[in-house]
Amino acid sequence: MNPEKNKIVILGAGNVATQLGLALYENEFPIIQVYSRTLASAEILGKQLKTAYTANIQDINTEADMYIFAIKDSALPSVLKNMPPANKSLWVHVAGSVPLDVFAGYTERYGVLYPLQTFSKSRKISFSNIPFFIEANNSADELLLENVAFSLSDKVMRFSSEKRKLLHLAAVFACNFTNHLYTLSTQILEKHGIDRNILLPLIQETAFKINDLHPRDAQTGPAVRNDDEMIGQHLEILDNQPLMKEIYRLLSESISRDKINGERDT
Amino acid sequence: MNPEKNKIVILGAGNVATQLGLALYENEFPIIQVYSRTLASAEILGKQLKTAYTANIQDINTEADMYIFAIKDSALPSVLKNMPPANKSLWVHVAGSVPLDVFAGYTERYGVLYPLQTFSKSRKISFSNIPFFIEANNSADELLLENVAFSLSDKVMRFSSEKRKLLHLAAVFACNFTNHLYTLSTQILEKHGIDRNILLPLIQETAFKINDLHPRDAQTGPAVRNDDEMIGQHLEILDNQPLMKEIYRLLSESISRDKINGERDT
Repeated sequence: MNPEKNKIVILGAGNVATQLGLALYENEFPIIQVYSRTLASAEILGKQLKTAYTANIQDINTEADMYIFAIKDSALPSVLKNMPPANKSLWVHVAGSVPLDVFAGYTERYGVLYPLQTFSKSRKISFSNIPFFIEANNSADELLLENVAFSLSDKVMRFSSEKRKLLHLAAVFACNFTNHLYTLSTQILEKHGIDRNILLPLIQETAFKINDLHPRDAQTGPAVRNDDEMIGQHLEILDNQPLMKEIYRLLSESISRDKINGERDT
Repeated sequence: MNPEKNKIVILGAGNVATQLGLALYENEFPIIQVYSRTLASAEILGKQLKTAYTANIQDINTEADMYIFAIKDSALPSVLKNMPPANKSLWVHVAGSVPLDVFAGYTERYGVLYPLQTFSKSRKISFSNIPFFIEANNSADELLLENVAFSLSDKVMRFSSEKRKLLHLAAVFACNFTNHLYTLSTQILEKHGIDRNILLPLIQETAFKINDLHPRDAQTGPAVRNDDEMIGQHLEILDNQPLMKEIYRLLSESISRDKINGERDT
């Protein structure tokens, strides 16, 4: 694909829109406009990408070759309904759990460009090893999206909507829930005046260990050792935090059950 | 401390005993013996550390200056009870949640040398940035343990048993439970024939992101966006896995509640 031939409008100015926009911009894709329903957000991203911006859906530039919808999944249908006519162009979303056919009835050519990564506005990220999952309703656009993705990353795969949804579910466990465990452990430390950064080497080794070991074989801690006495002591510390206590209990039970299943399998 | 003056016996041949033993060995501490109740394990670690080994507690060398108990917390009392007399030496354990005074009544000089890290036998690890937490029942041995720890790592702190237990509880969330989430996400992928390695860049970015951002500010995903429709779809996929479904539900609730509390605080 010749980037110059593919003028892009980015819809959304959140975490994904920002980081994907920056990556496209740095790879010299011509981004001709940013749309966000919040003018301040549209302006911030528009300026970062040195391009036009609008908060008025009727002012969306209809000359683009590709419209990238990087907005909240729940907002997508209403934006699609109100889009100005741009029906010769390719419409693309970037979501894990939204099926391809969300576009059906709104336009002719559509696809998905899903980067499997966690994005925040303020943290710049290298795209080269982010896996991209591609889908389109026609093979020409599938190829086009593949080329766009390959210009950002080395890992590009074609995945159906169904498979992509499973991937996204796995990512919720591996990333969103994991990050929340970081929050909970940080809470324990901060409550007692201990610097949270003390946990960083442990957290990072835990994440790197599974490069070498299957996570089941990397498991350590009281639950996998069936150390009921220590588990009891930990639950006691959490007596005043019923939700955290229940999370501790449930994850310990799951570790212990997974171990039994693992032993049965071998 | 002059390492040559401190002959060490390591009790245990599991994950911590192996990695700590290797680190001490490489730093030229004279390890004079390895004890494990399983002879095969004692032999493997003894050979790695080029030293004597035994599975007979009565054959433990009584000439050491330091005995490092790196055994299962639940096995500690019975080993202490059966130790041959070595009462002039320093006895040390390496556990997060075992109080210092577990040694009281068994010997005169005792302490704790707790490395905050996850260890597996087969994965070699750099000790230089692992935080060590030190405690002893007398100030001379506190200093001695501090010196031992500083010869392995740059980060050494004195922590009470009570504070160390909180730290260990936080580590269970940040490491043991996190690793189990990796197992669950891997299960989802493997069940559908998708390579688990596809998640590694996401997992590693999640762990590194909190170098820059407080984990609360790094949170992404359906729960923090209150995307109830997607949460409902994910729960539906997990219909046949009640324990995993409950984990999904509970962690989503905790993320959502944490967000509300965070907004109230600011």
